[in-house]
Amino acid sequence: MLARSEVSAAPPGPSLAGMFADIRRHSVALAAPLSDEDCAAQSMPDASPVKWHLAHTTWFFETFILERFERHFAPFHEAFRVLFNSYYNGVGEKHPRPERGFLTRPSRAAVLAYRENVDARITNLLAAAHPPAGLGDLITLGLQHEQQHQELILTDVLHLLSRNPLFPAYDEDFPYPATQNSNAAWQAFDGGIVEIGHHGESFHFDNERPRHRQFLEPFELATNLVTNAQFLAFIEAGGYQDPALWLSEGFAWINANAITHPLYWHRTPSGWMEFSLNGLRPLNPDAPALHLSYFEAAAYAQYAGARLPTEAEWEHAAETAALPGMSGAAWQWTSSSYAPYPGFAAAPGALGEYNGKFMVNQYVLRGASLATPAGHSRATYRNFFPTTARWQFSGIRLARTLTS
Amino acid sequence: MLARSEVSAAPPGPSLAGMFADIRRHSVALAAPLSDEDCAAQSMPDASPVKWHLAHTTWFFETFILERFERHFAPFHEAFRVLFNSYYNGVGEKHPRPERGFLTRPSRAAVLAYRENVDARITNLLAAAHPPAGLGDLITLGLQHEQQHQELILTDVLHLLSRNPLFPAYDEDFPYPATQNSNAAWQAFDGGIVEIGHHGESFHFDNERPRHRQFLEPFELATNLVTNAQFLAFIEAGGYQDPALWLSEGFAWINANAITHPLYWHRTPSGWMEFSLNGLRPLNPDAPALHLSYFEAAAYAQYAGARLPTEAEWEHAAETAALPGMSGAAWQWTSSSYAPYPGFAAAPGALGEYNGKFMVNQYVLRGASLATPAGHSRATYRNFFPTTARWQFSGIRLARTLTS
Amino acid sequence: MLARSEVSAAPPGPSLAGMFADIRRHSVALAAPLSDEDCAAQSMPDASPVKWHLAHTTWFFETFILERFERHFAPFHEAFRVLFNSYYNGVGEKHPRPERGFLTRPSRAAVLAYRENVDARITNLLAAAHPPAGLGDLITLGLQHEQQHQELILTDVLHLLSRNPLFPAYDEDFPYPATQNSNAAWQAFDGGIVEIGHHGESFHFDNERPRHRQFLEPFELATNLVTNAQFLAFIEAGGYQDPALWLSEGFAWINANAITHPLYWHRTPSGWMEFSLNGLRPLNPDAPALHLSYFEAAAYAQYAGARLPTEAEWEHAAETAALPGMSGAAWQWTSSSYAPYPGFAAAPGALGEYNGKFMVNQYVLRGASLATPAGHSRATYRNFFPTTARWQFSGIRLARTLTS
Amino acid sequence: MLARSEVSAAPPGPSLAGMFADIRRHSVALAAPLSDEDCAAQSMPDASPVKWHLAHTTWFFETFILERFERHFAPFHEAFRVLFNSYYNGVGEKHPRPERGFLTRPSRAAVLAYRENVDARITNLLAAAHPPAGLGDLITLGLQHEQQHQELILTDVLHLLSRNPLFPAYDEDFPYPATQNSNAAWQAFDGGIVEIGHHGESFHFDNERPRHRQFLEPFELATNLVTNAQFLAFIEAGGYQDPALWLSEGFAWINANAITHPLYWHRTPSGWMEFSLNGLRPLNPDAPALHLSYFEAAAYAQYAGARLPTEAEWEHAAETAALPGMSGAAWQWTSSSYAPYPGFAAAPGALGEYNGKFMVNQYVLRGASLATPAGHSRATYRNFFPTTARWQFSGIRLARTLTS
Repeated sequence: MLARSEVSAAPPGPSLAGMFADIRRHSVALAAPLSDEDCAAQSMPDASPVKWHLAHTTWFFETFILERFERHFAPFHEAFRVLFNSYYNGVGEKHPRPERGFLTRPSRAAVLAYRENVDARITNLLAAAHPPAGLGDLITLGLQHEQQHQELILTDVLHLLSRNPLFPAYDEDFPYPATQNSNAAWQAFDGGIVEIGHHGESFHFDNERPRHRQFLEPFELATNLVTNAQFLAFIEAGGYQDPALWLSEGFAWINANAITHPLYWHRTPSGWMEFSLNGLRPLNPDAPALHLSYFEAAAYAQYAGARLPTEAEWEHAAETAALPGMSGAAWQWTSSSYAPYPGFAAAPGALGEYNGKFMVNQYVLRGASLATPAGHSRATYRNFFPTTARWQFSGIRLARTLTS
Repeated sequence: MLARSEVSAAPPGPSLAGMFADIRRHSVALAAPLSDEDCAAQSMPDASPVKWHLAHTTWFFETFILERFERHFAPFHEAFRVLFNSYYNGVGEKHPRPERGFLTRPSRAAVLAYRENVDARITNLLAAAHPPAGLGDLITLGLQHEQQHQELILTDVLHLLSRNPLFPAYDEDFPYPATQNSNAAWQAFDGGIVEIGHHGESFHFDNERPRHRQFLEPFELATNLVTNAQFLAFIEAGGYQDPALWLSEGFAWINANAITHPLYWHRTPSGWMEFSLNGLRPLNPDAPALHLSYFEAAAYAQYAGARLPTEAEWEHAAETAALPGMSGAAWQWTSSSYAPYPGFAAAPGALGEYNGKFMVNQYVLRGASLATPAGHSRATYRNFFPTTARWQFSGIRLARTLTS
Repeated sequence: MLARSEVSAAPPGPSLAGMFADIRRHSVALAAPLSDEDCAAQSMPDASPVKWHLAHTTWFFETFILERFERHFAPFHEAFRVLFNSYYNGVGEKHPRPERGFLTRPSRAAVLAYRENVDARITNLLAAAHPPAGLGDLITLGLQHEQQHQELILTDVLHLLSRNPLFPAYDEDFPYPATQNSNAAWQAFDGGIVEIGHHGESFHFDNERPRHRQFLEPFELATNLVTNAQFLAFIEAGGYQDPALWLSEGFAWINANAITHPLYWHRTPSGWMEFSLNGLRPLNPDAPALHLSYFEAAAYAQYAGARLPTEAEWEHAAETAALPGMSGAAWQWTSSSYAPYPGFAAAPGALGEYNGKFMVNQYVLRGASLATPAGHSRATYRNFFPTTARWQFSGIRLARTLTS
Repeated sequence: MLARSEVSAAPPGPSLAGMFADIRRHSVALAAPLSDEDCAAQSMPDASPVKWHLAHTTWFFETFILERFERHFAPFHEAFRVLFNSYYNGVGEKHPRPERGFLTRPSRAAVLAYRENVDARITNLLAAAHPPAGLGDLITLGLQHEQQHQELILTDVLHLLSRNPLFPAYDEDFPYPATQNSNAAWQAFDGGIVEIGHHGESFHFDNERPRHRQFLEPFELATNLVTNAQFLAFIEAGGYQDPALWLSEGFAWINANAITHPLYWHRTPSGWMEFSLNGLRPLNPDAPALHLSYFEAAAYAQYAGARLPTEAEWEHAAETAALPGMSGAAWQWTSSSYAPYPGFAAAPGALGEYNGKFMVNQYVLRGASLATPAGHSRATYRNFFPTTARWQFSGIRLARTLTS
């Protein structure tokens, strides 16, 4: 990832300090409904303990800001450099990802003390009469990074709680989006040469750049996300058993893993239920179908006589039309493999590992979900996951090519 | 496992109630140095969270005693019947063993409440004017079962802490046995027809019965356990690299897992260290070598021109000679595969699953370790683990056949 | 895969019968240097025995042509329908791919008899006064399919022989392309809106269609493929040890598999050798580097300050410029994930499984290799393999974005 | 393994030369019904290609006899030393066992030439006026080793052919033992101190020694092996679904591998069939049940209210009573873990790897099977396999402890 240098046009100062305090406080608040035990467990290698997220985001500020800008820098704890490094080879050793749940020490309280220490030191830097060049950009980057982990805190704790036969709720009142109108319609677009990618001075990740041209054939997008009722119809039509609907690798994968419905659905004697941050509830037929893998999304599209949109189509639509739920209900799988834009260059140094090195065998999701922090979405934002990822708040918006 | 019926000769009453209170309290005390996070984590499928041990031992009393003897029995929590069943098919479903660390709920506090509830109800039963027949035996069995888990609490938490790069101590003052005299000597035995297996009225597990005859050739046993200094000499002589010393399966296993020293040893710039319940400390050359697999024990014996004892040799020696450290320092691997004694019969019902169904592909260890609760050892006791188990307090006593 | 209907403009007749005879004969000739044992073995699940290729290509004609067009069709052998079905769910059951090497029966002789039987029956159909509509298209498709397997015969037998410590040559005189001029140069292209995809009436696979527009930024392509000498410099510069050059998944993969050089290279006391269809020979510094995975290709490009071309760039260049080795030396990895062209639709029925269901988690290679049959290459041809595939004749052509 | 030195009392000479010729010829004859392809394939890592068996037994003579006794010894082919070494670390490198099926070269013809070369050289040694000391013992050992591989040729080729949906017969007339009387009866034994292990001068493997005393409780053995009809009754009674009948590890294993009947049984619309060296035939209810794992044998015994015999019980019975089918129908699982007899010592050097290093996590089988070469069985013979091995000709004889 890289905050491009022009971002620094936004001067650091009181407002950044305020954002810093707010966003950092929000991460801790997300953990408030959880016990120490909840915060320490890791339910699969792809997910991390909440406590680890709280520590890693702090490590990010310590490593990329304090170590660079603080006079007489000394680490809060030498071992944390390794324990809370996620994947930055440029920073040195890393603790094995599947073993994050073994880190019962440092305790949650110790991690919170770590946060307070680093927060105070960052605040000090920001309060300087002449903050160093680049400080504001890096803090902005650190906050955007923290917001990414705020969403992961929710996806990861949902996965953990889902593996517990007691089906504990994270928060019975966590707001899920209002039901959508399931009368799907289509919005057409002319195509032609369009521009995609970030432009202007505001914050963005390096993978959103450079803005560039693409040629699009005429197409249309569904105005609504696929609903639970629609996905249930796919199940009842034998969708999970029909190889003709699936990518070959996807069909092998659902069979090897005995997958016959979305991740958090449960078939019970009293009907379909869905586990969510609110606990186990009857399936809401009008809500968007969530927690779908790319393979399931692509099979559904095939069943529906449609396809997934490309990320260029999605972005073009988001910038030129008003479609409901483009952002805020569910991340939407696109058919675009995650790849560098023409002319993309990663930043030098460890921060250059933020995005570029993951640009293979993953697919782009666009939009934002109910778990995405406010202010952390934009039309050019590129989320990405492997084709088997199901624990994210991921759904489906259909597309069709218009033949002229 | 089965407490044979003659055990009931020991009448239930105040003293059993006292033992019950003491042993149950001791389990909770073992968890006292640990945080809620420590108690919830599972560092490998073979190990269980401390919280799980606290709940499972309670489940044992609830399932095998309260459910049988209590009028108007109702479970403390319906789901616990599944969550805390270890391996009793006769009781019904079980929660998957490798996922015990995902059970952040019930919380440690809730598990302690479960313990208090069951303890009160058991105490009530014991206080009855006419306790039902068989109650005393089953409570005794439950307490022996609890003591087995007390040792597992220590072995499992040691494994968990060992995976933490901060190397936290469980208890810096946990007593390790005094160093032994490393001037090994040999004690000879004549062999002939001997009897092994439990006799008399006192408590024992079903696998210790029936007492029966075996024929032993003349043999001798080392009077001391193999020390760290001796095992280090094996390492320095290239013991882990020489296939001629190893069982074929053992040599494949150490190579596939890159094993070159005992589980908790660390080669550091300042010499060999050993992680223990006291934390990371310099290796004590005169202490017994611990945390060895059967494969390592057998390879060391080959290197030393000796062999491991059979369990019959060990038991005969324990009953007829004074050898130091037979019990209390380390469990001692024998060359005996875990098998039923002639005439062995498992109990009917779920309790019959205690021992018999594990009698394959495991090897018997005899003695007791520094982690074994006081009063939980005897010459006829048969512990057993697979050949690759290393996280137990397991060591080596050598044997040799005497040719007449 | 689908031969689009317009292909049928090429009338079936004597010339098609001649092509049929020639291409079918060539497959058998490719197996001539091999023993029955060589033809039956399978050295990894991704590769198939030569005998299986000879049978499967025959099955293709039997299943998709004879079964459809032959009056009173009866299969040559009922079991072959399952044994030699590769991946067509629409045709029914399939024999497990990793067990193709267990099929010592039918014998090679029996498979050759199967070929002769089917060949005679196809020839009969072609000789009819009024061949049925669609026959010519399907035979052409079957022959193109057979040519794909001719290349796989060579890649798969090379892999098999490479696992034999005797290093047997397939054919000591198999022609490898002449060495190339290693003075790499760059050819620039303006970009803009270009058209890619197949046009016209000639044969093509369904994945090459529809021809459509793409917008390209200005770019340049290397005029030569990366040579062994150049790739050796990458190795000697520590390329396989530097995570900064690798995609994250690629670096994990080379480390998990201890990969430190191309698949068939051997570091020997007398220098680097390469195993090839000619046997084990000293590495030719001026020949194109072969048998590279996508991960290795991408890492080399990063090391060289360049990138891999997109498939649109490659095709545009192939149609508008004269670059050496575009076809005939090595397949060239592109950075394009294998995806449907806008408006792509798979054929109905089992033949629709030819291409579309593989369009995920694979990357497109363009060009053709020394193992590609004559006449089986064109600028619009899309080959595809997963990022870890190394046993194909795959190499590297570099690209760079030109900043205007 | 080790031919103890007293064996040399049997002088080498014409009769040994005759045996050598006969046994060596028999191995080649066993391969006669098989094609080159059949002889080269390997259907699982535990099995080896027939060609490999033919070569490895030759390597044994070359390595342990020619290399030691032949003047100016030179290997037939340098690479064979590695290719055909099975597991002797003392001899050097070994080709990876799971890749034996990739060795399409040397061809079967080349392996037969290797056999002829070594045979001629051994014959020369034997014809010497003064054969060197120890030659006769080692040739006898080599022949016994060859006979072990003759049985493996049949078990391994049966496994290979069983994986072929064409169900080819090895030999439709291969003699299976006559059906047995299924009126099972019991033969009682008094027990007491008995002697087991080999005695006298005749050939034996090192693991049969020393003869030693064991104490046996009174017991009885079934006079017949368990029949197919009896095992079918176990299946029909839900035996494979009842955890109470199984060792815990066994029940996990059958469930993980979806095992619900013996290895080569097939449930077909027209009833149960069994694949054998004769091809696929209706199950013979009166024939001994074959191809059972230890786990299945132990579960059946539990179901039948009996147990498996110990090897000491078996050997004592074989030496003192006339029980049908002790040898010649099926190997019979005992409950004895494979372990050294008291006083056992492996031979020095590579030949000491023959038996001792496998004495862990395997169980002893006694008797001999229909695939055992004539003359290769005796009451003291100890065969051994892991608990999951099913492809051997292994069956069940029940035992019961007699309570006095």
